Amino acid sequence: MTLGKVIGTVWATRKDEQLVGLTLQIVRELNLDGTMKDRYLVAVDSVGAGVGETVLFAQGSSARQTEVTKNKPVDAVITAIVDKMDTAE
Amino acid sequence: MTLGKVIGTVWATRKDEQLVGLTLQIVRELNLDGTMKDRYLVAVDSVGAGVGETVLFAQGSSARQTEVTKNKPVDAVITAIVDKMDTAE
Amino acid sequence: MTLGKVIGTVWATRKDEQLVGLTLQIVRELNLDGTMKDRYLVAVDSVGAGVGETVLFAQGSSARQTEVTKNKPVDAVITAIVDKMDTAE
Amino acid sequence: MTLGKVIGTVWATRKDEQLVGLTLQIVRELNLDGTMKDRYLVAVDSVGAGVGETVLFAQGSSARQTEVTKNKPVDAVITAIVDKMDTAE
Amino acid sequence: MTLGKVIGTVWATRKDEQLVGLTLQIVRELNLDGTMKDRYLVAVDSVGAGVGETVLFAQGSSARQTEVTKNKPVDAVITAIVDKMDTAE
Repeated sequence: MTLGKVIGTVWATRKDEQLVGLTLQIVRELNLDGTMKDRYLVAVDSVGAGVGETVLFAQGSSARQTEVTKNKPVDAVITAIVDKMDTAE
Repeated sequence: MTLGKVIGTVWATRKDEQLVGLTLQIVRELNLDGTMKDRYLVAVDSVGAGVGETVLFAQGSSARQTEVTKNKPVDAVITAIVDKMDTAE
Repeated sequence: MTLGKVIGTVWATRKDEQLVGLTLQIVRELNLDGTMKDRYLVAVDSVGAGVGETVLFAQGSSARQTEVTKNKPVDAVITAIVDKMDTAE
Repeated sequence: MTLGKVIGTVWATRKDEQLVGLTLQIVRELNLDGTMKDRYLVAVDSVGAGVGETVLFAQGSSARQTEVTKNKPVDAVITAIVDKMDTAE
Repeated sequence: MTLGKVIGTVWATRKDEQLVGLTLQIVRELNLDGTMKDRYLVAVDSVGAGVGETVLFAQGSSARQTEVTKNKPVDAVITAIVDKMDTAE
């Protein structure tokens, strides 16, 4: 999984019917010091993560292993809202 | 998923029979400010996206979870035409 | 999928028995202007693509969705020989 | 698989229920000389790896092939604690 | 698939039980001129490849399609020992 920050939302009317009702959040990847990378992706939210929150997201087929994404054409899902990171660097 | 812009189409006569009838769109990846990256890919269109449109696409095994791509040797699919992006950057 | 050019062939006597009989083509990835990238991969040919031809290839589990690659330890397959690309860049 | 060093832990209260009880370790990828790369990821621990240990981790759908990660939205798992590397470079 | 050179071996006592008995080879990716890239990975050997040999390896779920890796948390497998490469560059 990767750490990211939710920075926005994508809106789409014309879409695969399996995406109806899903929230599509724009997530910027985070460096370990909390700064944002240039890399971003669009992930389905499965935990009620809002803009500004630090999250954990999963990619690939693992992104289809939540209740809201099962069998859907979704390759990224937010699976947790991060409370704290302990690092010993 | 990733944001992209459809910039063209690939034509192929000799191809795996499971690709017959599919539209193969060339998609350039987008930066969050709407400019195009150098990275591109060829994605099957499942939503009627035309050249010039901003789209959302899924990759990997998730690209096979639409009706038009099921069980096919397809690793990228356009799943939505983007209306709007709200970002709080 | 990605666009590439077949530039050679790999020969291997000692190999997983599921690879016996498959043609292993060396494919250089292409830029949209037709020039070759440094990136290459070795892909199984499913459409009779020869050296010098521009092809479309699929990667990951999608590479196992052709008749010649089904259930085999193959992560890249050539699925089409490209006739033409229309781009509106 | 890739070599990494466990450098910390992620804590999350609000998360997909399938993640409850899993340890989420922050892993920095290692160069072959043992120095750390900038790249990191968050991996589920399946072998009791602690901070400071050199580990092997698997990614993608293969990360769901351990007893603790089966069918869960997990795309990275620590599968071994490395004792020794012999290299003939 | 990708071309690589076996440059060493990883030893681990504490590991997922499904890895017991597998040989974990360190493989450096190769450029097409035979020089080694900085990129490396750890792959399970399924063909008896020794240090110094040029090999072909598969990644992702395709790495689990050999007899020795089936259903195991393995995301890279050596599938062939390369005899020769013909390139027309």
